[in-house]
Amino acid sequence: MNKTLIPPLLGVLGGMGPLATADFLAKLVAETPAARDQDHIPYVAWGVPQIPERPAAILGGGESPLPYMLRGIAKLKQAGAQAVAIACNTAHYWYDDLVREGKLPILHIADAVCDLLAERGITSGTIGLIGTDGTIMAGFFQSRFAARGLGCITSSRADQDQLVLPAIACVKANDLDRAHRFAVQAVENLRAAGARAVVLACTEMPLALEHAPSPATAHCIDATRALARACVAWHRTAMRPC
Amino acid sequence: MNKTLIPPLLGVLGGMGPLATADFLAKLVAETPAARDQDHIPYVAWGVPQIPERPAAILGGGESPLPYMLRGIAKLKQAGAQAVAIACNTAHYWYDDLVREGKLPILHIADAVCDLLAERGITSGTIGLIGTDGTIMAGFFQSRFAARGLGCITSSRADQDQLVLPAIACVKANDLDRAHRFAVQAVENLRAAGARAVVLACTEMPLALEHAPSPATAHCIDATRALARACVAWHRTAMRPC
Repeated sequence: MNKTLIPPLLGVLGGMGPLATADFLAKLVAETPAARDQDHIPYVAWGVPQIPERPAAILGGGESPLPYMLRGIAKLKQAGAQAVAIACNTAHYWYDDLVREGKLPILHIADAVCDLLAERGITSGTIGLIGTDGTIMAGFFQSRFAARGLGCITSSRADQDQLVLPAIACVKANDLDRAHRFAVQAVENLRAAGARAVVLACTEMPLALEHAPSPATAHCIDATRALARACVAWHRTAMRPC
Repeated sequence: MNKTLIPPLLGVLGGMGPLATADFLAKLVAETPAARDQDHIPYVAWGVPQIPERPAAILGGGESPLPYMLRGIAKLKQAGAQAVAIACNTAHYWYDDLVREGKLPILHIADAVCDLLAERGITSGTIGLIGTDGTIMAGFFQSRFAARGLGCITSSRADQDQLVLPAIACVKANDLDRAHRFAVQAVENLRAAGARAVVLACTEMPLALEHAPSPATAHCIDATRALARACVAWHRTAMRPC
């Protein structure tokens, strides 16, 4: 077995939630330019969902998931991972701690989104942001948008309660028809409020939106897919010459 | 962090191919009775596709993938896995070597299929088997069916060349409409030849068949889903009391 043929290993910190991890891994495959199995990005994934809820820890002082995430990163590092992707938007609230204590580079999902916005020519104006209350409150998307000269608007409290959170709940309950209607309306309301593009910064939203054709989709950025694309870019630059 | 709260860890040997791994992980989530994220089965997945092609090794004496698979199992064991599921039908050709040298229990995909057949009341008669040439030649499905008193028929050479292999190729090329027509015809031909049920023993076939509604689906067993169900059953019995 020739070890020099093995390209750099990606670590995937998953389990938050379980379906989001599988969705991320499928998008990683879809976003990789590959003519055969062997061209795909090698990864090791830690998919342990026995971890405290992230929004509760951010919003209400629930138990911190940080030690659990650090344990996962330690396992990924031990297995040979050279960088980490976290398949959960809200978990990026602990990004700085995870990088400092985990001692591995971590591809930030909001940086990945900003790169994809730039790739689409969106370098000014206001971006709509759809996510859980925890992700919105955490503020890491807003600060990264600001660093790139982009404004940010989020759904009104009423839209969050009547459209965004119900759409997420409907996806989890596998009622995709209703989820789709809620999601489209949430996107359209942000567009009407001035958003040039709308970032779907929770893993359920893309599933809701893509369930049926809709003109709203063209204006949306799927954060999970953006992270997958960032992993592909990382892999290209990290690949050692054989 | 209370370690006794962490249930037994499943190891997933993936990368053969990359999309099959994501599909297996999604089916693992779907088959787990869970009211919340934390109820799902914790896993570590080794998704390294830089591994020699399995059918070539079986049919034509290509390089053996065994050392690569054993390296993956060693990584899973090091990360704490207590049992392994292999998200690839053909790879089970090396099952005995993997168990003996990997020194971890491995849930066999054909045993999982047999258990699901029994659960559906199918304990006699003839089973249709659809898979790659490598899986069919390997013979581990046929021998396990025989051990349970079940006969086995496979597609004719003509059907293999004109329906099964084209269906697989169409899935890989994302032409699901054509793949669906090929797959339905392959299933119907096995049914007409006397199969009580048809086992889809390659990871592309379920994607082809489930692309559109078809009466053929009711008679099919998805081997990937059967393996996911076996993992759920393993997890239930392996769970330590807290």
